[in-house]
Amino acid sequence: MNKKIINKLCIIGVGLIGGSLARALKKADVVGEVVGVGRDVSHLEKAKELGVIDHFERDVSLAVKDCDMVVVAVPLGAMQSVFEKIVPVMTNDMILTDVGSAKGSVVKAAQAAFNVIPETLVPAHPIAGTEKSGVEASFAELYKNRRLIITPLETSSQNAISKVRAMWQACGADVIETTVDHHDKVLAATSHLPHMLAFSLVDTLAKMDAKNEIFDFAAGGFRDFTRIASSDPDMWRDICLANGDALVEMIKKFSDDLQLLSNAIEQNDSTYLEETFTRAKNARDEFCED
Amino acid sequence: MNKKIINKLCIIGVGLIGGSLARALKKADVVGEVVGVGRDVSHLEKAKELGVIDHFERDVSLAVKDCDMVVVAVPLGAMQSVFEKIVPVMTNDMILTDVGSAKGSVVKAAQAAFNVIPETLVPAHPIAGTEKSGVEASFAELYKNRRLIITPLETSSQNAISKVRAMWQACGADVIETTVDHHDKVLAATSHLPHMLAFSLVDTLAKMDAKNEIFDFAAGGFRDFTRIASSDPDMWRDICLANGDALVEMIKKFSDDLQLLSNAIEQNDSTYLEETFTRAKNARDEFCED
Repeated sequence: MNKKIINKLCIIGVGLIGGSLARALKKADVVGEVVGVGRDVSHLEKAKELGVIDHFERDVSLAVKDCDMVVVAVPLGAMQSVFEKIVPVMTNDMILTDVGSAKGSVVKAAQAAFNVIPETLVPAHPIAGTEKSGVEASFAELYKNRRLIITPLETSSQNAISKVRAMWQACGADVIETTVDHHDKVLAATSHLPHMLAFSLVDTLAKMDAKNEIFDFAAGGFRDFTRIASSDPDMWRDICLANGDALVEMIKKFSDDLQLLSNAIEQNDSTYLEETFTRAKNARDEFCED
Repeated sequence: MNKKIINKLCIIGVGLIGGSLARALKKADVVGEVVGVGRDVSHLEKAKELGVIDHFERDVSLAVKDCDMVVVAVPLGAMQSVFEKIVPVMTNDMILTDVGSAKGSVVKAAQAAFNVIPETLVPAHPIAGTEKSGVEASFAELYKNRRLIITPLETSSQNAISKVRAMWQACGADVIETTVDHHDKVLAATSHLPHMLAFSLVDTLAKMDAKNEIFDFAAGGFRDFTRIASSDPDMWRDICLANGDALVEMIKKFSDDLQLLSNAIEQNDSTYLEETFTRAKNARDEFCED
């Protein structure tokens, strides 16, 4: 009995995310062959050595040949050029998906490259990751019990949607479905805004005269807070450019509330402070149980 | 050989911070007797049952009697009323210290209560804690290898400074000395501002229509970020009121930088974004090694 979900998988961009996907699918024994593509041969050799991929190609159009699943796991800024390389060899049997942190920009990139968006394209986004990057950091359990958001398009075929869903379920992910727009708004709030605050906070403090003491005195809470400022700067530049509208709106909303809090501190408004902190604590404790 | 640093210690406010101090000193065998005081008898009974304190009193002026060390571990808003209860029984042999997160307001409270600040008063602040509170959460290792800032006053005697320093060193803390003003500025940056951002972020998100999904989709980074929003609201109200000037100034500095970042996103200024994120990542990685 052949229980493979995918016969030949191509991972374009074999880093933490792409590498962990390949590992998980191999561990679950639901994939036949895994081809990797990337810009850096030494990384690809490392990925092969680690058993993450079976072999690799330098050329995207060669790599995707005969693949029934192609996962584009490159930075958002590189999506369009990758899609353009796939165009000449695209077939109706090739399901195409990605792992980008913003979905509207992926759809735009596909539109620009393919002109008519293929019905096998199903954008997706695993809500998982660490501050580490690279294939060496990849592991099969990265997606276990983590959310995986798929944002099927009006053009997406049921078959393609089912296959992408099955692939991620085989990795242990909890697959949920929403629209491209809604995904981008929610992620701007829950991921992109917090990253901006962390990057901005660390940068503000690092510019101060007392910066050595500031980082020296930093207690537990602050370290947790700033850990996410260790994330890859290039990836976050791309996310800002890709989801700018939703993110700018969220920053505005946050800044307005912060200004109200600051006013309350200035006016010794203990009721406002107490109520805000209590509301936040209750929301936090209710939703996040760790 | 008597290696006790303290013969009779009074802890006013036997929670996480006061309780952990008592545990650490007992474990190091440098304290004779430990008396606890607090508002809630059931908490004090629990503290006694856990062996954190040897006995307790309800009345501060009875509790501090014959003590050579008194540690005030109550919320900042309660400092002055506690000091006022100590005034009638204060002696030159009683060293007085606290654990407040802001120091200027403690000095003000002492000034108001004592009129002339006693030379045995040495304000201090352990840079340690968890989001948990209460004596049940206390443990002897809380201060091990953590910073403890003492801010001796012009009036503080060398003997009092040495004793407070020795007490915390016996808990494994790394004792550093600075001024009241400098402490309050640095802590506004490194602790109070990040807490405001976390509280404010969680509150902003909790007010949104999509709040269920927002908290549902929250990935690792966000959880780290918001963990500190679980801290005690009353304590943070007090900190805001106690260190308002420095905190409002820091919020302004942060908000100005965040606005520049938002402008850069709006204008697709990839160079600004890349440079800011890289600077932040480098500062973070340089200073925080975990």
